[in-house]
Amino acid sequence: MQRYFLTTKQLIKQPFYLDEQTAHHLVTVLRAEVGTQAEFVQPDQLVYLGHVSSINQDGAQAVLDGPLAKSSSSELPVSVSIACGLPKGEKAQLIVQKATELGVHEVIFFTSQRSIAKWPAAKRARKLERLQQIAQNAAEQSHRNIVPVISYSKSLSSLLDETDKITRRVVAWEEAAKQNEKSQLAATFSELQSGDSLLAIFGPEGGLTSDEVAQMQQKQVIVAGLGPRILRTETAPLYLLAAASYYFELED
Amino acid sequence: MQRYFLTTKQLIKQPFYLDEQTAHHLVTVLRAEVGTQAEFVQPDQLVYLGHVSSINQDGAQAVLDGPLAKSSSSELPVSVSIACGLPKGEKAQLIVQKATELGVHEVIFFTSQRSIAKWPAAKRARKLERLQQIAQNAAEQSHRNIVPVISYSKSLSSLLDETDKITRRVVAWEEAAKQNEKSQLAATFSELQSGDSLLAIFGPEGGLTSDEVAQMQQKQVIVAGLGPRILRTETAPLYLLAAASYYFELED
Repeated sequence: MQRYFLTTKQLIKQPFYLDEQTAHHLVTVLRAEVGTQAEFVQPDQLVYLGHVSSINQDGAQAVLDGPLAKSSSSELPVSVSIACGLPKGEKAQLIVQKATELGVHEVIFFTSQRSIAKWPAAKRARKLERLQQIAQNAAEQSHRNIVPVISYSKSLSSLLDETDKITRRVVAWEEAAKQNEKSQLAATFSELQSGDSLLAIFGPEGGLTSDEVAQMQQKQVIVAGLGPRILRTETAPLYLLAAASYYFELED
Repeated sequence: MQRYFLTTKQLIKQPFYLDEQTAHHLVTVLRAEVGTQAEFVQPDQLVYLGHVSSINQDGAQAVLDGPLAKSSSSELPVSVSIACGLPKGEKAQLIVQKATELGVHEVIFFTSQRSIAKWPAAKRARKLERLQQIAQNAAEQSHRNIVPVISYSKSLSSLLDETDKITRRVVAWEEAAKQNEKSQLAATFSELQSGDSLLAIFGPEGGLTSDEVAQMQQKQVIVAGLGPRILRTETAPLYLLAAASYYFELED
């Protein structure tokens, strides 16, 4: 069943009008009719079963029938944020879509020393808006309870300042993999408890410089290897998120 | 350093001519000169350091300088094969590239009941050749010791027959995730020893039918959930491979 996020709490006034995009997807793309059911996530993350109650020229209206019986959360017990040195081309979109499916809490793109891509100020808002929309679509498709927030940080220093409240921070560095570092990720996972948070930092295509890694280490960011193979810039965050899901959600 | 696979053992006769594609990538794309070093993987998986010894109108020649000092394998200790119901569009390419980076042993595409994509016999060889090339490029880029084999199986029955020597077989089924199945993947991993093999089967966009899953269960394929979120057809195999790498290569 399709899932949609409601931007305002819709419990008192019913039926309510679906926003334009939701109405378009439900009615035009999925060909919903009056009576068609869907899941609606309230801003408080609770999921309700609802149905389309009317479709006319003013838009589509829906009614909430009640909270979903097995309304268990589909969120990771530890909030995992990822920060990616600005990647080239369409890779930011791939990262946002796949990371959302894999349960990411937020994605921060930051300008790093070897980033070839630039996000000039004039285009940044438009880029972030587009990525936020991809996150919302992926969150609906993968049945998340929240939409991850996509943001930009202008430098590594800013990133480190803005994330210093996060419980543990790691950086995936290609050189660590080459030096066969393979214990830090598991050690970090084992230190985290439900409700804690984790930030994982990744370089752009050209990797992170040793200066950048030294700067992170001064701020207690741990260098962690992600196995013996060299992963592309867009693959490494997905590895980390899948490993986190495996550890926190399946292995237990 | 760039890595290339040698199709024939090149130890006796040196210098040797690089194949056309390797020469093009090394000389034209990476602008190598005489003396530029690269890694060369012999058909026996051993990795040698070598260098370009001449470049002229006949092609580029190389010399092997000796086995790589830390020639540790970058292969998963358990061979993981994935089988995917034929996906739509470019997704097969994405799966092959990313699965190769994540250490897959082989990728089998099979025609399943809800596959919308068709691989007609006339176009199949060309498709597989293209996917095999993607696997080779990704294997070189990610510093693999082998190139995963990409193949096609005409039905689920064929797939099950062809893979019945594999140590353990699992299927990732959306319905299992919905029913909160979350113990089988970890249980399966824990039963596997170095040298064993694992096959993981995934449906196409529309998922697997309950008939297909029943057919698999009759052949001792275990239904395994991959966490509480609904993963797209191209994301699920990457989750499984990353989880396998985490379990077998990092966690230990």
